Amino acid sequence: MHEECGVVGVALTPSSEVNSAALFIYYALYALQHRGQESAGIATHDGERIRDVKEMGLVSEIFDKKRLDLLKGSLGIGHVRYSTTGASRIENSQPLLINYKGGTIAIAHNGNLINSKELRAGLEAEGRIFITDSDTEVIAHLLVKELIKSNFVEAIRRLMQCLVGSYSLTLLVDDTVAAVRDPLGIKPLCIGKIDGGHIVASESVAVDVLGGTLIRDVHPGELVILKDGEIESHQICRHKNSAHCFFEYAYFARPESIIDGRLVYDVRRRIGETLVDEHDGKVDVICPVPDSGTTFAIGYSIKSGLNYIEGLIKNRYVGRTFIMPGQEMRDTAVKLKLNVIRSNLKGKRVALIDDSIVRGTTSKRIVDMIRSAGANEVHIRVGSPPIISPCYFGINMSTCEELIASNKSIEDVRLALGADSIGYISIDGLVKSIGIPAENLCLGCVTGKYPLEVRGEACVRGRPTEM
Amino acid sequence: MHEECGVVGVALTPSSEVNSAALFIYYALYALQHRGQESAGIATHDGERIRDVKEMGLVSEIFDKKRLDLLKGSLGIGHVRYSTTGASRIENSQPLLINYKGGTIAIAHNGNLINSKELRAGLEAEGRIFITDSDTEVIAHLLVKELIKSNFVEAIRRLMQCLVGSYSLTLLVDDTVAAVRDPLGIKPLCIGKIDGGHIVASESVAVDVLGGTLIRDVHPGELVILKDGEIESHQICRHKNSAHCFFEYAYFARPESIIDGRLVYDVRRRIGETLVDEHDGKVDVICPVPDSGTTFAIGYSIKSGLNYIEGLIKNRYVGRTFIMPGQEMRDTAVKLKLNVIRSNLKGKRVALIDDSIVRGTTSKRIVDMIRSAGANEVHIRVGSPPIISPCYFGINMSTCEELIASNKSIEDVRLALGADSIGYISIDGLVKSIGIPAENLCLGCVTGKYPLEVRGEACVRGRPTEM
Amino acid sequence: MHEECGVVGVALTPSSEVNSAALFIYYALYALQHRGQESAGIATHDGERIRDVKEMGLVSEIFDKKRLDLLKGSLGIGHVRYSTTGASRIENSQPLLINYKGGTIAIAHNGNLINSKELRAGLEAEGRIFITDSDTEVIAHLLVKELIKSNFVEAIRRLMQCLVGSYSLTLLVDDTVAAVRDPLGIKPLCIGKIDGGHIVASESVAVDVLGGTLIRDVHPGELVILKDGEIESHQICRHKNSAHCFFEYAYFARPESIIDGRLVYDVRRRIGETLVDEHDGKVDVICPVPDSGTTFAIGYSIKSGLNYIEGLIKNRYVGRTFIMPGQEMRDTAVKLKLNVIRSNLKGKRVALIDDSIVRGTTSKRIVDMIRSAGANEVHIRVGSPPIISPCYFGINMSTCEELIASNKSIEDVRLALGADSIGYISIDGLVKSIGIPAENLCLGCVTGKYPLEVRGEACVRGRPTEM
Amino acid sequence: MHEECGVVGVALTPSSEVNSAALFIYYALYALQHRGQESAGIATHDGERIRDVKEMGLVSEIFDKKRLDLLKGSLGIGHVRYSTTGASRIENSQPLLINYKGGTIAIAHNGNLINSKELRAGLEAEGRIFITDSDTEVIAHLLVKELIKSNFVEAIRRLMQCLVGSYSLTLLVDDTVAAVRDPLGIKPLCIGKIDGGHIVASESVAVDVLGGTLIRDVHPGELVILKDGEIESHQICRHKNSAHCFFEYAYFARPESIIDGRLVYDVRRRIGETLVDEHDGKVDVICPVPDSGTTFAIGYSIKSGLNYIEGLIKNRYVGRTFIMPGQEMRDTAVKLKLNVIRSNLKGKRVALIDDSIVRGTTSKRIVDMIRSAGANEVHIRVGSPPIISPCYFGINMSTCEELIASNKSIEDVRLALGADSIGYISIDGLVKSIGIPAENLCLGCVTGKYPLEVRGEACVRGRPTEM
Repeated sequence: MHEECGVVGVALTPSSEVNSAALFIYYALYALQHRGQESAGIATHDGERIRDVKEMGLVSEIFDKKRLDLLKGSLGIGHVRYSTTGASRIENSQPLLINYKGGTIAIAHNGNLINSKELRAGLEAEGRIFITDSDTEVIAHLLVKELIKSNFVEAIRRLMQCLVGSYSLTLLVDDTVAAVRDPLGIKPLCIGKIDGGHIVASESVAVDVLGGTLIRDVHPGELVILKDGEIESHQICRHKNSAHCFFEYAYFARPESIIDGRLVYDVRRRIGETLVDEHDGKVDVICPVPDSGTTFAIGYSIKSGLNYIEGLIKNRYVGRTFIMPGQEMRDTAVKLKLNVIRSNLKGKRVALIDDSIVRGTTSKRIVDMIRSAGANEVHIRVGSPPIISPCYFGINMSTCEELIASNKSIEDVRLALGADSIGYISIDGLVKSIGIPAENLCLGCVTGKYPLEVRGEACVRGRPTEM
Repeated sequence: MHEECGVVGVALTPSSEVNSAALFIYYALYALQHRGQESAGIATHDGERIRDVKEMGLVSEIFDKKRLDLLKGSLGIGHVRYSTTGASRIENSQPLLINYKGGTIAIAHNGNLINSKELRAGLEAEGRIFITDSDTEVIAHLLVKELIKSNFVEAIRRLMQCLVGSYSLTLLVDDTVAAVRDPLGIKPLCIGKIDGGHIVASESVAVDVLGGTLIRDVHPGELVILKDGEIESHQICRHKNSAHCFFEYAYFARPESIIDGRLVYDVRRRIGETLVDEHDGKVDVICPVPDSGTTFAIGYSIKSGLNYIEGLIKNRYVGRTFIMPGQEMRDTAVKLKLNVIRSNLKGKRVALIDDSIVRGTTSKRIVDMIRSAGANEVHIRVGSPPIISPCYFGINMSTCEELIASNKSIEDVRLALGADSIGYISIDGLVKSIGIPAENLCLGCVTGKYPLEVRGEACVRGRPTEM
Repeated sequence: MHEECGVVGVALTPSSEVNSAALFIYYALYALQHRGQESAGIATHDGERIRDVKEMGLVSEIFDKKRLDLLKGSLGIGHVRYSTTGASRIENSQPLLINYKGGTIAIAHNGNLINSKELRAGLEAEGRIFITDSDTEVIAHLLVKELIKSNFVEAIRRLMQCLVGSYSLTLLVDDTVAAVRDPLGIKPLCIGKIDGGHIVASESVAVDVLGGTLIRDVHPGELVILKDGEIESHQICRHKNSAHCFFEYAYFARPESIIDGRLVYDVRRRIGETLVDEHDGKVDVICPVPDSGTTFAIGYSIKSGLNYIEGLIKNRYVGRTFIMPGQEMRDTAVKLKLNVIRSNLKGKRVALIDDSIVRGTTSKRIVDMIRSAGANEVHIRVGSPPIISPCYFGINMSTCEELIASNKSIEDVRLALGADSIGYISIDGLVKSIGIPAENLCLGCVTGKYPLEVRGEACVRGRPTEM
Repeated sequence: MHEECGVVGVALTPSSEVNSAALFIYYALYALQHRGQESAGIATHDGERIRDVKEMGLVSEIFDKKRLDLLKGSLGIGHVRYSTTGASRIENSQPLLINYKGGTIAIAHNGNLINSKELRAGLEAEGRIFITDSDTEVIAHLLVKELIKSNFVEAIRRLMQCLVGSYSLTLLVDDTVAAVRDPLGIKPLCIGKIDGGHIVASESVAVDVLGGTLIRDVHPGELVILKDGEIESHQICRHKNSAHCFFEYAYFARPESIIDGRLVYDVRRRIGETLVDEHDGKVDVICPVPDSGTTFAIGYSIKSGLNYIEGLIKNRYVGRTFIMPGQEMRDTAVKLKLNVIRSNLKGKRVALIDDSIVRGTTSKRIVDMIRSAGANEVHIRVGSPPIISPCYFGINMSTCEELIASNKSIEDVRLALGADSIGYISIDGLVKSIGIPAENLCLGCVTGKYPLEVRGEACVRGRPTEM
């Protein structure tokens, strides 16, 4: 099950002033809400046992003072989740709480195992049962199998030998808060110092909101244990290379987060600058697709010396329960979400800056809107290379057939979107903008070459092939 | 975890007119709502997979047309639950749905395993994990362990060799609806013919509401499989005796249900008649504690020739969210639930008929109310013998210290309640009223002698002893 | 707009121990919940201003501790409402709060004005506007018109000269709690002494739950002001006769209420006894339609010496959100609400006792159920005379065409219901059972002769005639 | 009661393809949601009568397909509301529906009457009553008083002679949709052509989302009737000057709206440019306070040639139910809403651009955050002149004591906020940027001189004076 998620772990020293891990986790999940809006949960250890609250909805809808007060204790973990498959069941929400021989474990997971089917089959063959559809339950089974035989660190080592894929985990194993990052470091995970203790979180923005200080990223293959005000590190496995997901920089993470040493804002700004270098095209104004194109457009504007303008305005109130109109009012729905400022576009050659193009359907509508507003030319500039293959590591992307760049040449994409020109960032330009060597990035969706062998499809000109 | 619950299973032949098992189960759960008001759930097999809906709340609150329409298929099971422990977690609601090697299983359970702790420990020792607190998950693990080795009937046989306690189960194992009753037949379970198929349910009232015909009870130790319009019976194990819970007759079941061949109404009426024989005491009027004392009082009135009157009126709208007043208005709360009709009691010698006395706190208040209304004498008559020991098989009763009759002599109980006389039905009288030999009844809570060895407490004059 | 409602007014002396009128009103509304389940509201005066909370739903659903705490003050009124027309708008819920020149007024109304259309037209002709559909807003306009010219008592006098119909009002006029009953005393209203002050309420059961003492009924045509621990009485108008609604005794009120000096339970019991005298018919058992027929049946049983039995069992959990099945399961719905105890009816001649027959549709189904259960004969006995005309004073009854007894001879009613005999209480027997002279009762719906001239229809053998 | 609101009116010709005014109004209210998030409502005329739905909450939360389907008809009005006083009662939500002699009227109001107290007193002196606290009910009374004497146009003329203050109204008077704008045109109101009919709305963005064309603004003092596909105009009164609220341009309206002929975006951009001219100060980067400062900052950046950067990032998920932490975590709350990008600010001289400074509390916190991020200098630039007096016409502003610029010199404001320099736009610069002569603008809050005599306070150096 592909999932985009955010995870948190907090360990306070019992003597700290604000001795409520739940309150810290609550604020941290708020800061990570962009990583998942479907469900959220917090589990804390109150000195005796682990309690949890989890529910469908936004962090702000689920937790109130009464519930946070119930979640006593100085240790805890949290999770926000956006399931990309249909299974919006409360059973699949996290942290997953399980009882085993030794006590209770809570697990929060961001990522996607590519061998979960095999692992599940193996466990089922032993007569084990599964209550949820999540990879997390698979991880729980494997962890417990080892835990009853070995100590915690050794159990994690053996667990990691089984897991193939992306995983940033936070764990509450009885009264221990721990965090694990997969050997390729595909999904982000960082450690921060906060008042009274430490935090691990998917993005450093969660450290910021707590007034804390980013210490460092969790290393690929590292197990971190937060205990008694100390950070205990175990480098469980070491690969020659990493495979940090480039899409976190291009789209998913918040701009003020620092991931694997790179400020996301700077990466996006540099991509914008590189796009100026890589593509010609005389334009008059630089117009972002809000909000995801904004930082790219700022970089583009600064480098090109051309004016950054707002040509598209986003309605901040278009909620999840939006009523789709009949065919005759379909355009209305698009305009509800995004409206044009005609005079900023009329008679102009517009550079339209977006973070990525996946299916192309929204881009097509936006180009149409901008033309209807009177733009003379529309030149699309894209902060990611053409997306030609699916993601197997936790980003919700379409299948080959749906990926517009998988099926069409760039010129055909341009024609399909109705643009005067289209300029993607090159893979080389992207890598330079990120500032991490290509061999340490996961670029699977733009190259079709994955850091791990996947048994799914890569797309060759739209025809999926078994790899 | 002690639980009072109701279970249902429905199998329709695909060609039947109303081909929605969910709709039948919905109505059946309505009829069994008295067995559990905390949560409810339905799982159906739609031909391809098992789907379920479960939630906290009443059947009427959880299900609407849209949800029932989602629960497609001609096969399904249902559950209503009242947890007697604090764990009102949605995770504990049923049917429990699990995936295993062979597919998917849904289980609904009424009863209480007395060896669940040991079973769970054994499973945990194998490295297994538990997500819920319920006995049902224990059953699921054990069932699956066998299912991967044997066929379904054999797996059930081995499962039943492990389980000690009370259990009436309905199961949906892929596309098979089955029902199992423990070897002592502690909890009720019956089979009915309905339009287009069959139903198994905790009480025959569920058959009635569907316009069906009660066929028979599931035998103690029997596995019943409903398939292709047939009832397939497997007598898995056979004990010399049964141990039908007498409290189902005295309190828990609906009066119009027929349990193990006895109409509950008739049992209650006969108990009322027997109470006349067993206890002297000149009274003027027969007044039930509504609603549970009503049928006993009717029997008492008919036998004694004395007038049945309403002296206590129940407010039908006192809901679950009732606000408790401060100390100064405590009496108000009691009067909200139960009000007196003064003129029916004033100057009268009142026979006050109740089904049972557990803690005695409510009885005490009622006696006070009746005296305040001007009754000359209050003679309590009780449809159950003194309850002196806890129930280990699924009825929510107090611990020894809280059971008034466990700690006091009958005379002291009378004094504590402030009654002029108190008359319990004798165990002998109870057994005769039920019409089932004592050796085939569970009378543990009134004798301290249980049909199975329990590792809990029995009460000897209030002092719990390890058994 | 026809409305069945309950009203309350509470005035505590500021020095009383429990100085929260809202808490008392809350419990009183609970006790009156049977008079209206659609919406409820409370308004209190906190020393400075009037605050209110009102909402759709049951008392238990609307009020919690937080809301009751907001409703500060020792003075207040409350209302429960069941609209019999479709206008379930929150705007129509009560108490109605209005601002006027002199301050703020809250009004709660039980009853129905038969000249509200004319009054509204007159007020509209003056250019006045209406925000709700309720009679209460008409009353508010008229009251304020007078209040700005006269003192409160004089204003009420003039108001009462305008109003034609039934009205039991409780009012909160700035810091005065008052109550008014129409000159015919059609709807009930009584005064009680409670701890710390006084209460006025639709039924004495509201006094009971507060541990209070019923003082007396508000007299027809009386204005009562509760102030400073005193009851100030103003007999505003005096008719020669009253017109107390008999249906309150027969169906609407709770059995333990004392209305206009008569205990409802006793009235029902006496009706049951009178039915024995008035109708022959050899029967074996007396079976009430629960719950409304119960007390009649007890009287019938005592007088006849025949056994009172339960032949029909009501499901207490059939809520408001019940899903109606398709045609093929229509019978299921009936059985969900009411189930039979076959063995109590089989082979018996059954006297089926109900409070009244309005449309006859439910009665027909019940007779069918009883016959299906094997009864040899079904003899219907009814606690009200044949209902042949609509109610114009606040009871929700059908139009002429729908009233089965308006359209058919008694013999034809019997045939329509499929009964072996049918015996209504005679008007004479009803009057004697109530114990109030016929000239002081409203018997409009069973005689077609109303205490006030109504401009609607009376029914002559089913054909409505202008009166 | 000060209220910020949005109003809509839609009239479709019955023959139009999408013949549901409610659906159009729903989308229009979505586009106007920024004008009020407390409650929303729609009223439509279905050919026979007016129906309405209104509730507390966002447009997306209140309306679903079922409710919109109930609101049949080709004519209707709508309203979104943000009450600036505490009275968040459903009774105060709009449109207000009233019945009167001639039928039914629905009214939606944006603005604030400054003589409502007197008008209300006059109406109360006539014995009239009020159910809501809103100006709208005052307007309804006055309108109906005239309507029963004159035709609609004449009634509106007389109504407008009574009203003093700001009001943009949409009305549904039986089957007529009308709109009225106060003689000074304080609040915006415009007319658009949409598919199948016409729309009037607070802002042209509502026309845009429906794919319509802005026709023109409703003139100050004009009554517009939308009927049979025609726009009927009545210039009821004509003042020499208008008094368009400048704050709509500076803050309240959406940037893509065109109000009284001026595109809001352009006004804001020009203000940004003018700020460059009006204030010296060497800075390195231009940083907006998101989202309200963005367009000003773009103008500032373009004019100054300095880089526009994102130094502050807004969390889009901070909802209304946010839990405030204890004192020790107060900073966390600020950081949750707004986070910094350190590297964009560190070592920089930052021009911080905001739309206005009211109390100054948020500005102070933001300056602190920017300094903590390492900025060398912080130069505040503000798109409105110093706000020195309250608004009496519908914008929620503080009292004199709370307005920071009312109590302090500009230098003292700078010191209070901890900035290195502070530069407000001059009144002259503002007027030129808007492009409307000062005599046609309401600048009351920045000059203390109001277009209408107000009986409240203006502030002289912080000391309120009676005017």
